[in-house]
Amino acid sequence: MTEERELTLEEQVAALESERDEHLNDLKRVAAEFENYRKRVLRDQESLVARAHERLVKELLPVLDDLERALAAAEEHEEAKLEEGVRLVHRELADALEREGLAEIETTGVFDPHVHEALLSQPSEEEDGSVIEVLQKGYRLGDRVLRPARVVVSQGE
Amino acid sequence: MTEERELTLEEQVAALESERDEHLNDLKRVAAEFENYRKRVLRDQESLVARAHERLVKELLPVLDDLERALAAAEEHEEAKLEEGVRLVHRELADALEREGLAEIETTGVFDPHVHEALLSQPSEEEDGSVIEVLQKGYRLGDRVLRPARVVVSQGE
Repeated sequence: MTEERELTLEEQVAALESERDEHLNDLKRVAAEFENYRKRVLRDQESLVARAHERLVKELLPVLDDLERALAAAEEHEEAKLEEGVRLVHRELADALEREGLAEIETTGVFDPHVHEALLSQPSEEEDGSVIEVLQKGYRLGDRVLRPARVVVSQGE
Repeated sequence: MTEERELTLEEQVAALESERDEHLNDLKRVAAEFENYRKRVLRDQESLVARAHERLVKELLPVLDDLERALAAAEEHEEAKLEEGVRLVHRELADALEREGLAEIETTGVFDPHVHEALLSQPSEEEDGSVIEVLQKGYRLGDRVLRPARVVVSQGE
């Protein structure tokens, strides 16, 4: 067993001073770390957005290249090459955007105000309230609607 | 003048205990704030990148629409409409990327290894070391080279 005894008041004062100083130093250190972190975050956020954009823009360069090739084919009146070029460009752009999470909005079945915008309603053989024509495709990115599908809705017969 | 006297040791102990506890509480509070901030930053960074992408992807939707119109024109063998469509799509995509800060790399004059990539060197009438042909356009985004211009360089005569 170790020998134990009550601390004298002087010893208590010395011990408390040292504890107080230790907490104060820790407080200053954590506050300084916090402040540095805050500054770094601001810098990082800018470069994060820049890097994210960079990747996407880089993916679109081949699309731009192939569009220019298609334009050159158009100038030479090489119609088959132009048409093939446009198909290629469309596939490249659609693929690049799909990799970003872009997805077409479904337009089969009943009109859904969350993802569809009704531009017209017309009498038709289709059930009242169903989508009968798509005037402009709609898209979602992840779980957000980027653009609603613009549609014509049936009024029933 | 207020009356002053030395604190007793008991009073010193009490005062130091209260200072120590105050610093410890501040330390705990700042550490907790720091931790919450760190967590929020992680969440924010995800949505920051998502929002940044969303804006760019949204700008590309009309390009996709017009490409689809051009494809429809191709299927109907409406060559003039197809050609006009491709010109429109090219302008839209080039404009959208320019707004993001994309710029073509200059290729006039002397070969610059920072922005050009020499794929070939050929004897020519042009000065030794000057760019004589661009095989693939180069691009920069802001002050970063996204893709060097791929060029043919003159060896002199």
